[in-house]
Formats: sequence, structure tokens, C-alpha cells
Amino acid sequence: MSARQPSPGELLDAAIAKDRVSLARLLSVVERGGEQTGELARLVYSSEPPYTVGITGAPGSGKSTLTNQLVRAARGGWTEPAEAVPQVAVLAVDPSSPFSGGAILGDRVRMQDHATDPSVFIRSMATRGHLGGLALAVPDAVRVLGAAGFPLVFVETVGVGQMEVEIASAADTTVVVVTPGWGDAMQANKAGLLEIADLFVVNKADRPGVNEARRDLEQMLDLSAATDWRPPVLTTVASTGEGVDELWAAVGSHRAHLAGTGALGRRREARVAQELRRVLVAKVLEEVQEIGRGGGFDEAVRAIAGGALDPYRAAEELLDAGRAALSGPRAGAAPR
Amino acid sequence: MSARQPSPGELLDAAIAKDRVSLARLLSVVERGGEQTGELARLVYSSEPPYTVGITGAPGSGKSTLTNQLVRAARGGWTEPAEAVPQVAVLAVDPSSPFSGGAILGDRVRMQDHATDPSVFIRSMATRGHLGGLALAVPDAVRVLGAAGFPLVFVETVGVGQMEVEIASAADTTVVVVTPGWGDAMQANKAGLLEIADLFVVNKADRPGVNEARRDLEQMLDLSAATDWRPPVLTTVASTGEGVDELWAAVGSHRAHLAGTGALGRRREARVAQELRRVLVAKVLEEVQEIGRGGGFDEAVRAIAGGALDPYRAAEELLDAGRAALSGPRAGAAPR
Repeated sequence: MSARQPSPGELLDAAIAKDRVSLARLLSVVERGGEQTGELARLVYSSEPPYTVGITGAPGSGKSTLTNQLVRAARGGWTEPAEAVPQVAVLAVDPSSPFSGGAILGDRVRMQDHATDPSVFIRSMATRGHLGGLALAVPDAVRVLGAAGFPLVFVETVGVGQMEVEIASAADTTVVVVTPGWGDAMQANKAGLLEIADLFVVNKADRPGVNEARRDLEQMLDLSAATDWRPPVLTTVASTGEGVDELWAAVGSHRAHLAGTGALGRRREARVAQELRRVLVAKVLEEVQEIGRGGGFDEAVRAIAGGALDPYRAAEELLDAGRAALSGPRAGAAPR
Repeated sequence: MSARQPSPGELLDAAIAKDRVSLARLLSVVERGGEQTGELARLVYSSEPPYTVGITGAPGSGKSTLTNQLVRAARGGWTEPAEAVPQVAVLAVDPSSPFSGGAILGDRVRMQDHATDPSVFIRSMATRGHLGGLALAVPDAVRVLGAAGFPLVFVETVGVGQMEVEIASAADTTVVVVTPGWGDAMQANKAGLLEIADLFVVNKADRPGVNEARRDLEQMLDLSAATDWRPPVLTTVASTGEGVDELWAAVGSHRAHLAGTGALGRRREARVAQELRRVLVAKVLEEVQEIGRGGGFDEAVRAIAGGALDPYRAAEELLDAGRAALSGPRAGAAPR
């Protein structure tokens, strides 16, 4: 075994040849961020992105069990590309967890369901706190999985913050999972969920209150602006698999709708615009950190504290100086 | 009355001459952000900043009543500068409120206590959602008040999020207000509060559990790293004024400690560094928004969606192009 680290390109070639260890290492590259991410992005953004299904909902709504069931349904019902065994990937995203990549218990527990199935790849992702974090890492990870040959990726988010909802809604089809009695718990977020949902699922439909939950959702949908796709409200019992095939069929209907109306392309362009904005922000924030480490920054702080300068003028001067310094070496540097 | 809007400089001159309407308008300039902020900053950052006392704590801890009582104590006990009537300002910061500047009920209610006292100025601040928001606006507002002749400013934050704590802790003396039984409610945030507190106050000390709350805090302090200032734990009943004079005396002791050890200067430099970092971030984010509005951005999105480009390379190209375009006119432009 060579001591040399394989390059992202070598790892991607191995991942395409179904080497799962190389795929996992590529996702770690994405998770870490940094220089190799740019190199990897150049390799994977030329591929067709996989079809992405986002799954979001409150803690305890049964998202993980439902995702496992959807994987099962997809493995049975997925017919393109016309390979005998379509590959399915699950990204389980937990922005609140400092752990990542297979290290957490959840992964091991979840893997058991599909452990004997080499065509299912499950991976937890968590931020390591670098700039941009998960909002950058998840779309890159989806692209890596697409380039590695997965035509279908589930992105499940654990948690209900703004970030989780944003990540899950950056999918081709977004499934919002609620449970009977959800109305009170998610009152504050109803409008937001309505905005991102392509499908609603009332999970744990064997509990009391399922009809009220459905009616509540349908009334919300009645009151919202009419569009060419009204999110259907489905019911499932993920623990038994009840209703999962119907849910998977509804995902297929939504996919057909997007493809038929040209909305898929528009949606993906909007997502790319969002990604590009995030990368821009991350890049300029890196620049600010760089400036903060420089001697000019400390000088400026002393000048402001001494009343000789104000922070706005100081910021302009630092940015101008930083750019002047950058533009020289950067122009001549080899592309990373 | 002229239709011409007075400049920040004219408003500041009027504010120094104790025109409260002009002062309020200056604070609105700060709140709005934008171009005039830079002009105003140049005027006010050359003045000595006022002594700033931050007051933070959970909702319902009685912060507003306590702040009113501290204003009363300060008006009696403040001896420098040696004017007959020292002026005191209160900034009540509510990051969660979309309202601002005197418009909210709270202001009117609070004003009643000091309505007949022309030397007390109370102002609510809320973000209007511009970049940088309150974290930028509050330090600028404090500087404006200092330049207008207020030697003492209380910054009270409503709410307990990260932002509120950050704002309150950007003070010379930070008072953390808790109530009997606070332990459970703020368990998660204890370490953070310990980090920012210069003084702890157990308010509503006429309720059961005050001794437990004190003991709890003292134990926390026993366990934390020793520094040259151990935050005292005081008790108050803000509604009756009990303990407020002692609290105000403790603020004075902390101030004397900071001045005697040279810590005041170091603390203010650290705050300036934090402000400068925030201004830098706000400026580069503005740049990203500018880039996002340009035609090159849409072109880049189409190229990425078509697989011809990746977001990292696109971001670099857009930033380089944006800077090349900026460097021309900017260099020759009149200083704002």
C-alpha cells in the first residue's frame, strides 16, 4: 500500500467501479471542505445530477424508518436506468451533531436493514464547522453520488431548524412528514412547510387524530395559492410499511409532473443559483478570516480604538489592500 | 422648514445641543444601515466611547424593571463627568421584533418612569433585516450616544439567543440577570453566561429559591477558572428597588477594577476587533449580493446547470470579474 493519498480523481474512478471505501472517502473530502473540494467539484458537476428526494419533519415523526421503507420500495419499483440492480443512496444529515461519517450509532442501526444489499449506500453527514458547512457539503455530496453511479439519492434531515428545512427542500421532490397531532407542535412553521412540500405524509397513521391531521393539511392547501401541483396528503405506518408503496408511487407522479412541465430544469437551475450564492459567501468569508489574521487588521483595531479611524473606513482599506495583495500571486498560481 | 434632509453631521451637532429629535433621527440612520452609516461612523468614532453596561437574562427575569431602577440609581450616584445632571441612555434591543424606534408599546410604558427627566434617553432598537443587522447597529448607536454627550449607556437585550448574549456582552460591564429557579431553564446556556458575566443578579429575590440560586451560581464560579475578577452574585427585588443601590455600587467596583488593571483598554480593543470583523463580513456580503444581481451570475448558473462549470470555479471567476469592475470607479470615487 502506497503512503501517497489518492487524488479525488482516483477515488472517483474507484467509486464508479463500486468501491464503497473510496466513495466514503470522497464524501469525507466533501464534508471537510477545503481545497480538494474544488478539485472534486470540477469532476462531478459535469455529470447529470441524481434524482433527489428530500425527507424532513419534526423529531419523532419517524423519518428514518420511513426513509428505510422508501429505499425498499425504490429498490423494487425503480426502473431507470435499465440496470438490473439500481443503486440507492441515503444521506442522513444532522446539523446539530458533531459526529459524522459512519461513526454514529444511527448509521449502524440503520445499515442493518440493508446490510446485505450492496446496492444501498447509507451515510450520515455532519458539519465539522467549516465555513458554509452542510449547506455547501450536501449538494456536493449529492453530485458525488450521482457521478459515482447512483441515479437516486434520499436526503433525510434530522432536526427542524431553518438549515434542515433548507437542505431537505433542495431536492427534486420534497416529502414533509408529520404525525397525528402535529398541528400544535409545528404551528409556527406551517407556512414554511407548505412552501417546501411537494408531498405531505401523515406517518404513524395507526394513532388517533390521523383524520384531523389530514383535514388540517388539506385546509391549509385549500387556503394557499393555486399552482399546477397540489401536494397530495398521504398516510403511512412506516413501522409496518403500510402506505409506503402509495407514497413511493406519489413520488413517481411528482417526478413525472416535473419532467412533463419542464419544472425539473427550472427547479435545478434555482438550486444551482442558491449553491453558487453559498459558495460565493463562503469564499468571501474565508477572505475575511485571512484579513483578520494579517498584521494590518491589528493595526486597524488600534487605530479605531485610539479614535483615529472608524470600522467602515478600516474595512474598506483592509479589503482593498487584501485584494491588491491577492491579485498578484493568485493570477499566476496554478489552478487548484 | 426646508425640504432638504439634514446631514448626519448637522444632526449630530443638534444632538450635542440636546435636541432629542435629532438624536432619535441619528439612531434611525444607524438602524437602517446603508451609506449614511459610514459617514456617521467617521464623526462618532473619534469620541471617547461612553461607559456601557450590558444587561441580559431570560424573558421574565425582570430585566426592564431592573434597568429602570439602575437608571434611577445611576442618576443619583454617577459623579463624572462633573456636570450637575449626568445624562443616561438606555438601548433596549429586541432582535426578534420587526418594530423599532419608539414605535413599540414597551417604549411608551417604560418612558413613563423617566418622562419628566430630560437627562434620560430611552430607545428601542430592532433590526430591519439589513446585512449585519443589530450586531453592527448597536455598537454604532452606543458611539452616537457617546458623541452626543452621554457618558453612560445601558444596553438591555430582550431574548436569550446567541445574538442577544453577544450584544449584551459587548459592554464594559455585563450584568446577567437570573431568577430563583433559573437553573432548570438555563441549564444549556450556563457555560455561556458564565463566560460573559461580570456580575450576576438574582432578581425577584422575594420568591422562594433565592438561596439555592445563589449557591448554584457560587458553585459554578468555584468550578470555573480563576481570574483576577470573580463576578459577585447580588440579589435584587427590582419591583421595590431592594438591592439596586448595592448592584449599582458593584457596577462601580467592576468599573474601577477595569480601569485600575488596564483591562478596560484591552476589552475595548477586543470589542473593536469584533466590530471590524462584522463590518468586513457585511461589506463582502454586500458584494456577493451585488454579484448576484449581475448578468454574469445568471450566465454562470446556466453553465453549471448545463455541466460546463462547477460552483467553485464559477465563484472565483465572478469574484475576480466583480473586483476588476469595482477597482476602476471605486478608486476614483469621492469618499462617502
